[in-house]
Amino acid sequence: MYREQIKVLDCTVRDGGLINDHFFEDGFVREVYKAISASGVDYMEIGYKASKSLLSPDEFGKWKFCDEDDMKRAIDGIEKRTKLSVMVDIGRVEKSDIPLAKDSVIDMIRVACYVKDVDKAIDLVNDFHAKGYETTINIMAISKALEHELDEALEQIERETKVQAVYIVDSFGSLFSENVHYLVNKFREKLKTKEVGMHAHNNQQLGYANTIEAIRKGANYVDGTVFGIGRAAGNCPMELLIGFLKNPKFDIRPILKIIESEFIPMREKIEWGYLIPYAITGMFNEHPRAAIALRSGPDKDKYLEFYESLSATDVD
Amino acid sequence: MYREQIKVLDCTVRDGGLINDHFFEDGFVREVYKAISASGVDYMEIGYKASKSLLSPDEFGKWKFCDEDDMKRAIDGIEKRTKLSVMVDIGRVEKSDIPLAKDSVIDMIRVACYVKDVDKAIDLVNDFHAKGYETTINIMAISKALEHELDEALEQIERETKVQAVYIVDSFGSLFSENVHYLVNKFREKLKTKEVGMHAHNNQQLGYANTIEAIRKGANYVDGTVFGIGRAAGNCPMELLIGFLKNPKFDIRPILKIIESEFIPMREKIEWGYLIPYAITGMFNEHPRAAIALRSGPDKDKYLEFYESLSATDVD
Repeated sequence: MYREQIKVLDCTVRDGGLINDHFFEDGFVREVYKAISASGVDYMEIGYKASKSLLSPDEFGKWKFCDEDDMKRAIDGIEKRTKLSVMVDIGRVEKSDIPLAKDSVIDMIRVACYVKDVDKAIDLVNDFHAKGYETTINIMAISKALEHELDEALEQIERETKVQAVYIVDSFGSLFSENVHYLVNKFREKLKTKEVGMHAHNNQQLGYANTIEAIRKGANYVDGTVFGIGRAAGNCPMELLIGFLKNPKFDIRPILKIIESEFIPMREKIEWGYLIPYAITGMFNEHPRAAIALRSGPDKDKYLEFYESLSATDVD
Repeated sequence: MYREQIKVLDCTVRDGGLINDHFFEDGFVREVYKAISASGVDYMEIGYKASKSLLSPDEFGKWKFCDEDDMKRAIDGIEKRTKLSVMVDIGRVEKSDIPLAKDSVIDMIRVACYVKDVDKAIDLVNDFHAKGYETTINIMAISKALEHELDEALEQIERETKVQAVYIVDSFGSLFSENVHYLVNKFREKLKTKEVGMHAHNNQQLGYANTIEAIRKGANYVDGTVFGIGRAAGNCPMELLIGFLKNPKFDIRPILKIIESEFIPMREKIEWGYLIPYAITGMFNEHPRAAIALRSGPDKDKYLEFYESLSATDVD
């Protein structure tokens, strides 16, 4: 697959940070940037831009806040072939935390939101856009979005923002290819002046497959992470995505090298990837939080019991 | 997805046996049969039917040969809801090794072959069919098959056999959804009186995705293995496949239970699943044997070197 417009974003440090509350060491973040930049990937998301007045720096590592000095130090002296992105969450950022783009190393700000918060997201991206940033809106938990609310949100984004892309975020890893096709078609229809993005999770081993399916249907912004690192089941593995995309600007080799040197040892210390409890929450189209809790306790391999506990939930 | 005609075959013991030369303990095989039968899966492939005059019983475990007594003992006393299948390889079986179906616990014999060996496969399935067995032909390494040879092979199978299904075998885990669609369409067009089957490998985390894609295009015979066990990157995970198929006869719970009790401990002892060297051979559309060799040596995590060694192969 080769399409000039395709932009690949690496969110290794940002989504991976959800596993360890963003306590990655500086040297690690620097190595990731070095590899990503050498591999020709378009963007690297280095963390969240959360406000220290809303979240405590005692509870989260520095990549939850992405101070300018920390980011500068992380990439200092490395040839900057890859643009920097940060993510913000609704309710965890103050506009005053975000300087003008010309005073920041950040190139792009991605606003993550649920469909219900789209007005707040629009307000933020318009502020960030006015400050000179590239912007996107990433619609989380899309597999639970009500159709008419999603339609209205997309129409509003198209009308009221200058974001360059709107992402389908399969937060629960529960989409199948037919759902991906349906959503990409819908997004393209509603968003005449924006690109469509795909951020997939790997609960059912479909993170990479669904990303390819989105590309086939016309999505041009796609996320991946090195060795699939990311919360719970993780994400679309960057090494596979780069292997698939035939754009000659990409080079898989720096990614393979950093998997060897950083990710194999890290996987011994922190856990992500295909594990049965995450597959189960994916099948049930549920947030992985119950599975994450299970994996941190003594019953982490009691799969049947876990499955029964989810099936037995009373609905009235 | 629900389609009455869909038949699921579990090849946990057969494909998994390729990792350990078929030295599974009797108790393990029995537990797998118990779980598979309880889960409503249609067939379980218990091993290979190789001839002891062609392969040495000193080098392989009993599930490479599948003596009647061993199979009988494995399933004795368990309610037989699941039919038994064995696989044979061209050149490793003598017709005289195969008794009449009425004298065997085997229900189905699947003949694995490359396109070039299709005449030998046809000769075998016709013998097995005459003895009273259900039969299939499984075309291996399909991603390297030459189009005109494959076409001819399919036409011959359609004309000269009574097999009930012909499988697409993605031996190298290198197919993408578009290839799966193309092949299933071709098989359905050429094989008017047979079903199409799919046996996928997971080198690029597409084993499950490609199986679903085959089903969507009309394949009715699909293979899976518990927890994805199988040579190298393994296969389509049965737990995901059962989670996808909505046929009420299937029950995922016995599969979850046996993953807990048997497969988590086993995965500590023998290796399979998504590992970078297998992803690399998948990308190169090559047999995983070089990657398997790498994983058994001291350089097992030297991914970049391995990648370079495959890219550097001279072709004249």
